[in-house]
Amino acid sequence: MSISGRVYLIGAGPGDPDLLTIKAARLLASIDVVLHDDLVPPPVLALINPRACVINVGKRCGRKSITQAGIHQLMIDCARRSLSVARLKSGDPMVFGRAAEEIEALRAARLEFEVVPGITAAFAAAAAIPCSLTDRRTASSILLSSGHHAHGPKLTDDSPTRVVYMPGRDLSALAKEWCDEGLTATYPCVVISRAAQPDQELQRLNLAELATARPGPAPVLVIGGWVLSDAGALHEDQKPVHAPQSTYPDQLTHREHSDTYAGQSELTLFDSDRRIGSEQ
Amino acid sequence: MSISGRVYLIGAGPGDPDLLTIKAARLLASIDVVLHDDLVPPPVLALINPRACVINVGKRCGRKSITQAGIHQLMIDCARRSLSVARLKSGDPMVFGRAAEEIEALRAARLEFEVVPGITAAFAAAAAIPCSLTDRRTASSILLSSGHHAHGPKLTDDSPTRVVYMPGRDLSALAKEWCDEGLTATYPCVVISRAAQPDQELQRLNLAELATARPGPAPVLVIGGWVLSDAGALHEDQKPVHAPQSTYPDQLTHREHSDTYAGQSELTLFDSDRRIGSEQ
Repeated sequence: MSISGRVYLIGAGPGDPDLLTIKAARLLASIDVVLHDDLVPPPVLALINPRACVINVGKRCGRKSITQAGIHQLMIDCARRSLSVARLKSGDPMVFGRAAEEIEALRAARLEFEVVPGITAAFAAAAAIPCSLTDRRTASSILLSSGHHAHGPKLTDDSPTRVVYMPGRDLSALAKEWCDEGLTATYPCVVISRAAQPDQELQRLNLAELATARPGPAPVLVIGGWVLSDAGALHEDQKPVHAPQSTYPDQLTHREHSDTYAGQSELTLFDSDRRIGSEQ
Repeated sequence: MSISGRVYLIGAGPGDPDLLTIKAARLLASIDVVLHDDLVPPPVLALINPRACVINVGKRCGRKSITQAGIHQLMIDCARRSLSVARLKSGDPMVFGRAAEEIEALRAARLEFEVVPGITAAFAAAAAIPCSLTDRRTASSILLSSGHHAHGPKLTDDSPTRVVYMPGRDLSALAKEWCDEGLTATYPCVVISRAAQPDQELQRLNLAELATARPGPAPVLVIGGWVLSDAGALHEDQKPVHAPQSTYPDQLTHREHSDTYAGQSELTLFDSDRRIGSEQ
């Protein structure tokens, strides 16, 4: 199939190029134009067709070189010139981005488009911690929300696992909100920066400590839930845990580069004797 | 790095082999033992190392050939014999599976393990509809829950997008629950069967119609949310929409096999003039 004149809303995943889907990687290798967010890191951009026109349309870092309407127009103009266009978004394209507006614009322009899902940060973080976000014994649901809407829906009980995207630099409002919902001071939380990237930082703490936590570099995610109480040594590492560090036996100290990703899940592997606060 | 003696909890994604991550596909191509769920379809299993031992440990279809404890023991026994083991789960491993228990067992056995995320059904469905699950104008959060816990957390407003995994064959209890939460009869819903697979079925309806909807083959997902009101022609297709069908112009009737996946997102592409109930 020719992809010319088509627009693809593609999920770049959390930043580890190994966590792109096969489909996303194949499309990027042959695409004509890529419009990408600021948070898509160089190792993912390196997979793009070297002859493609690659444009950073991110609106972070104080730069506002292009408006949302400008992004729509650029996608439409390129596709109408029979170019294939990738709108490359960090994580999955269908959560906490502007996909709804971009899809509206593409429909209004009667252009062919397709959405290619990506690993969203919540699941990249769950794999990195590692901790299941649900547990039939303690957590039967997950609420994904955005810090930009801190006063979102209230939950009537403490069982859902809460995942907050883009929580901002000051976590005190979020901590207060969760306290107001009736969550206790010991409610387990994780603040994770750049999940699944080599410079990932993971802070395990409880709700009483969340207000004063200092999140690492973006993207940051805050997870709260009783599922976390079983995920290794809560409270033991108040300082950020950096992914490339290893708490592992000697035979594992020689790592290839690709192991820096694998290493994330190993951080808590031998903590089972020290875990606290199990709800089971 | 040698992967011998390691256990990988791998997300198989929604069933389209193109939606596996690069990492998952590479691991499966060289793994020694695979323990997979019933819902992992043949096109994904076809990517497994042909010399691997592949065991279906699914507990569906009335078969109960292996208990959860038996799965744990099998993973542990194989890893202790220095075999690499993939526990291959439909979607993402960290949501609505038994990963919490499996991780506990692996920690207790002091085995090395790693989690490889996958595209979970909610985002595969969002791409297939296609509809963003959030919209800064109408939906600032997403609640993922499971039909096995139908009486889960109540939400205090109608803005979160609701995604229900494993809703069962009878959707009347779910419909009643949503009515009891104060959602109106016109609340837009989608029932999607086998999202991102060639035999995908998509039903667009409203809450009043949800109780009597007949879901297609597993896996099934129910999505409810005002975001859906902008996703094409709600109410126009009361009958299931099959993915391989095309509402496209003639030049697109010749499709390669791989286009059956791409075709899903095209179903509503030209519906922009017929959409109803927009909340914007």
